[in-house]
Amino acid sequence: MNHRLEPLLNPQSISFIGASARADRIGGMPIDLLTRYGYDGDIYPVNPKYQEVFGLKCYADIESLPKAPDLAVLAIGAKDVTPMLERCHAKGVRAAIVYAAGFAEEGPAGRALQEHLEDFAKKSGMIVAGPNLMGLANLNTQAHTAFASVFNTAPMQEGPGNVSMLTQSGNVCAALYALVRKLGLPVSHFINTGNEACVEFSEYLNFLADDPQTEVVLGYIEQLRNGAGFIQACQTLQKKDKLLIALKAGTTDKGAVAVQSHTSALAGDKHVYRSVFEKLNVIEAQDFAQMALLAQLAQLRHRTAGRRVAVITMSGALGAILADRFIEAGLDLPDLPIDVQAVLRKGIPDYGMVGNPVDVTGNVVNDPGFVQEVLRALASTDALDAVVIYAPGYMLDRMADSIATVASEYPRFFAAIDTGRATCRDNLRQAGIAVFDDLGLAVSALAPFLLWQERRKAQTPIAAPATLPASGLALRKDGMNEAQALQYLSSFGVPCKEDLIATTLQEAQTHAAALAYPVVLKILSADIAHKTEVGGVALNIKDETQLAECYQAMMDSIREKAPNAHIDGVLVQKMEGKGVELIVGARHDPVFGPMLTVGLGGVLTEIYQDTSHSLLPVSEQDANELLKKLKAFPLLDGYRNAPKADVAAACKAIAALAQAMAAAPESVREIEINPLLVRQQGQGAVALDALILM
Amino acid sequence: MNHRLEPLLNPQSISFIGASARADRIGGMPIDLLTRYGYDGDIYPVNPKYQEVFGLKCYADIESLPKAPDLAVLAIGAKDVTPMLERCHAKGVRAAIVYAAGFAEEGPAGRALQEHLEDFAKKSGMIVAGPNLMGLANLNTQAHTAFASVFNTAPMQEGPGNVSMLTQSGNVCAALYALVRKLGLPVSHFINTGNEACVEFSEYLNFLADDPQTEVVLGYIEQLRNGAGFIQACQTLQKKDKLLIALKAGTTDKGAVAVQSHTSALAGDKHVYRSVFEKLNVIEAQDFAQMALLAQLAQLRHRTAGRRVAVITMSGALGAILADRFIEAGLDLPDLPIDVQAVLRKGIPDYGMVGNPVDVTGNVVNDPGFVQEVLRALASTDALDAVVIYAPGYMLDRMADSIATVASEYPRFFAAIDTGRATCRDNLRQAGIAVFDDLGLAVSALAPFLLWQERRKAQTPIAAPATLPASGLALRKDGMNEAQALQYLSSFGVPCKEDLIATTLQEAQTHAAALAYPVVLKILSADIAHKTEVGGVALNIKDETQLAECYQAMMDSIREKAPNAHIDGVLVQKMEGKGVELIVGARHDPVFGPMLTVGLGGVLTEIYQDTSHSLLPVSEQDANELLKKLKAFPLLDGYRNAPKADVAAACKAIAALAQAMAAAPESVREIEINPLLVRQQGQGAVALDALILM
Repeated sequence: MNHRLEPLLNPQSISFIGASARADRIGGMPIDLLTRYGYDGDIYPVNPKYQEVFGLKCYADIESLPKAPDLAVLAIGAKDVTPMLERCHAKGVRAAIVYAAGFAEEGPAGRALQEHLEDFAKKSGMIVAGPNLMGLANLNTQAHTAFASVFNTAPMQEGPGNVSMLTQSGNVCAALYALVRKLGLPVSHFINTGNEACVEFSEYLNFLADDPQTEVVLGYIEQLRNGAGFIQACQTLQKKDKLLIALKAGTTDKGAVAVQSHTSALAGDKHVYRSVFEKLNVIEAQDFAQMALLAQLAQLRHRTAGRRVAVITMSGALGAILADRFIEAGLDLPDLPIDVQAVLRKGIPDYGMVGNPVDVTGNVVNDPGFVQEVLRALASTDALDAVVIYAPGYMLDRMADSIATVASEYPRFFAAIDTGRATCRDNLRQAGIAVFDDLGLAVSALAPFLLWQERRKAQTPIAAPATLPASGLALRKDGMNEAQALQYLSSFGVPCKEDLIATTLQEAQTHAAALAYPVVLKILSADIAHKTEVGGVALNIKDETQLAECYQAMMDSIREKAPNAHIDGVLVQKMEGKGVELIVGARHDPVFGPMLTVGLGGVLTEIYQDTSHSLLPVSEQDANELLKKLKAFPLLDGYRNAPKADVAAACKAIAALAQAMAAAPESVREIEINPLLVRQQGQGAVALDALILM
Repeated sequence: MNHRLEPLLNPQSISFIGASARADRIGGMPIDLLTRYGYDGDIYPVNPKYQEVFGLKCYADIESLPKAPDLAVLAIGAKDVTPMLERCHAKGVRAAIVYAAGFAEEGPAGRALQEHLEDFAKKSGMIVAGPNLMGLANLNTQAHTAFASVFNTAPMQEGPGNVSMLTQSGNVCAALYALVRKLGLPVSHFINTGNEACVEFSEYLNFLADDPQTEVVLGYIEQLRNGAGFIQACQTLQKKDKLLIALKAGTTDKGAVAVQSHTSALAGDKHVYRSVFEKLNVIEAQDFAQMALLAQLAQLRHRTAGRRVAVITMSGALGAILADRFIEAGLDLPDLPIDVQAVLRKGIPDYGMVGNPVDVTGNVVNDPGFVQEVLRALASTDALDAVVIYAPGYMLDRMADSIATVASEYPRFFAAIDTGRATCRDNLRQAGIAVFDDLGLAVSALAPFLLWQERRKAQTPIAAPATLPASGLALRKDGMNEAQALQYLSSFGVPCKEDLIATTLQEAQTHAAALAYPVVLKILSADIAHKTEVGGVALNIKDETQLAECYQAMMDSIREKAPNAHIDGVLVQKMEGKGVELIVGARHDPVFGPMLTVGLGGVLTEIYQDTSHSLLPVSEQDANELLKKLKAFPLLDGYRNAPKADVAAACKAIAALAQAMAAAPESVREIEINPLLVRQQGQGAVALDALILM
């Protein structure tokens, strides 16, 4: 491994500037940890006040060290930081950690200090973590630089670990570490990122993606400052079959205010983050206990799994409750195939259930041969992805050997839930079976894990942007009117309404006659984004007289309501028949770049927030997935005996809009088709109106 | 207390028929528990095989007992049950518990056995619990009749308790008991109801409402067989300031199938259950751990609380996460009042937060005087209902005394969350502060508890049905057409469209001219419920010619599509202008009786399942609450600068429909107004169509 962050995250030697001899001081705690847990590298405490700390020689200043350490940890005040970094750099130190608060999070003076620090790092090429940082730990080498008391209270692992924490909060890092260690999982890296003045989240994530130890990353995110870097790091994680489990803070207004106050982070759009996480198969988590359990489940990701679960209980009630909770969480409980039911029925009495959930009844646990037969049938049928067994403690104990045996024979994922006091838990875990002692926690961890497995099976790498079709049209830099926007989109293959531009009433009447009534009349101006609001749209015009009336009324209204708009004329279109209206938009997200959004037209979509989002590129197949995710998708799919809409044509148009956005220069803020009218199957879709905002 | 179930739930003497000398057998385990835990009443084992069991004299048969016990427990096979009950009854036994399975849950033969048992109970007046029952326990008197190993594994309480379990599953009862005892809460009654052949859920609930010990009931419900009894018992609970926390199984299709298979229960409509729970201020729970924590929180219900929460942390990140989770769970985090912020700012540095969430920063914990000042400000402001503090273990320890002091001075609800290893937890609990060691569990318990407190403050008893307005109209028993339905509703004050009935085209034309065009034409027939589907509605008819065409087309269509319908004529109404359309329906729920449902008209309401429900009676104020619960309520409230709708008039009409349903005989299955057109404010609402199904 030869990553830029190597001296920071895997240092061979560490110096502490502002070292203390007391283990309860921030300048002393990490030195205490290093010496107690057997760090193998060199440690150089620096403090003119001491000759020796924790049995180590203490130096008067950085210049006195016998050699340049990989990493310097600065336990000194904010104002002294950059001068000291300069001295470290002169000595040959490659990386530094800055504990001090009092930078960007603390008003204008702090912001100036931070800018100064950033300038220095940029010029010198030094890797500076923080400021406002609790410090780091590489648990594989016991390289401790964090003043986190959790390393004294949580049991220390032996040997290397595969779970890493990467958090934008020291407290969250410590809380996660405690929970992960409570489950007995060994840790690779303990990373919190502080103010991210010089090294930000994605670069750490990139390191962990390359780290040979790390397999699972528990992330806490307030704001991503490098969306492209994040996407790339997640793609590397995916390639290496590693997994990021992330809690994103600021999903509510109050939460967003809190993260801004915390690390001056901008929480961003939760829908966008969610869609990016989904596309990159990141598991989004809600709380710490769930994250730790997901890290534990990730150890079993080599087992085949997915959303189709069989629930096995000794109690009809528990079967019902688990069915309710799993289905509400997005999993499926398919009916068991007839042949599997037949195997089960051989030993399950009439009052038991052989569908799904299965109630094997209490008697069955006394017949290990039959229990194994049942589990083998469930482990081998193609109709299932996973098996979850709920049994009171002593019953689980009686079945434990059978479960372990079958789990050793089949690669299928097995989980056991026991809210009692089973003694077999460790044995089951060693046999590769997930074990839970709480029903709610089991559901909250199993559901996202199994859905992750489902997506992982289906996963296709994010395509490199396809070669863009040559557009015959250059984008005008001074803004575009509707006709120009439609023309631009049309050049990428978006089907657009035939429209004719008129600059006089007479011309409009000629066009209308050519198109045949009824027609639509729209004002044409790059200066008017919302035509309806200024009386710039007239629908369903039936004849020449009505056209004249509408034309006059429109001109009067525009003169009054948009007196300064430059008017290019009017647009005449044939009035469309019935269909389903979509809104399709693409815009530059400040974090992740170009994103696409689809939703059904109309106010209710807004009220029910029924939209779906995706990073670009968006293929026709992706577009189809996006439409299917809408709660209102049934309206496209032949709702209440209505004809099915031409979804394939809609997907083509959506993919074409995505192409048009990808090809557009950065100055294009947003492209929107509203509405995209989707006619009935076989009759296509058509953009009735479009908007390009620069 | 002099409840009918007293001999069953508080027996002074118990006999065991089919007694065993072994503590691991169902006929022995409860006798072992009774003797070990010091039950004070008489115990009479009955089994001709033994002279003595557990040091007690064992009798050859029930007839040999020296006196009639209050309660007989039957540990014998299903077929022998009713004959034995007859002998018990002859002896003078007042109540019995039947363990045996093999009744209604097991096919036709079992159903016949159960009917026989029910007949006997009805005739004899004997109180029979079960069959298919794990047995009961009164932990106040240590009257054990359950074969539940959990009484051997969970620590036994000393003295009486105030938490009772009431479940339609023995396994769930045991699982809940274990969790409640793990939290150290003492239990009053352990009740599972089995097949409920003779005593059903509500009667037990009614007993617990009267029980002087019980304050909190943890319920598990698959099906309520007596909705009216349940409502009444919940009202008694409310009156006595007791609390029911209920998990309802079967909220998904698969869950519903499972409960049906389990106890042949019909899961019913989850929306209806949910609305009834809300009206009766029952807390609906999702899993067992949550229920146990809610039982613990209920011990603090004397503290003032509600939905407005202040979150106090030492970490911006934790503040953000808690804000997100609490708000997503339905709580509010109001901004703190300026004067409170000023108190906080005196000791909180600039980089801390004094809004809400509050980040007091780590330094503050070392100044107990200031911590108390902060907490007093939060405990006394009218802008809040509750205070939640999240602190890592050692920081919570440093603040513990201050929190306890302030909690003793103010009645406000305080909770503390520590995912570390605070040592102060027990002290805080003794001071009346809720303490959690997991963030997810804390939110899942606190949110429903605080929302329950909010509703409890606002709670008005369910009004007795008001004296109904004298309706001039008797309901026709042979079905009603639209005009008759509207007339019936009108007599209760539902504003209805003026409509004129015609039996010929000429008559229709005369009516149309009188009303003035445009008009609506509708077929009039009690036999046609869905007029649109048979071509029985024509809207927006502009003139006499068009009316003639529509009339003819309608008659042709009806002749073809509903050839057997008896036609009363056609209805002519004036065409209505714009407005918001509601669907308002009332129907007899098989469990709870008459229920009202409101939603916005149109397909999207169905797709988004955006409806709200209420038990009758429904006042205008209730109707207003129901409308406000709709996600689409903004459409009534001046959405996007549209005029506000006449919500007051809509509420009047909804309340009037509820009256009409309440006054209708049982034979009326459903009354629906679709649509109720709500015009803009001040212009009223009007029922455009109505349906009464017998």
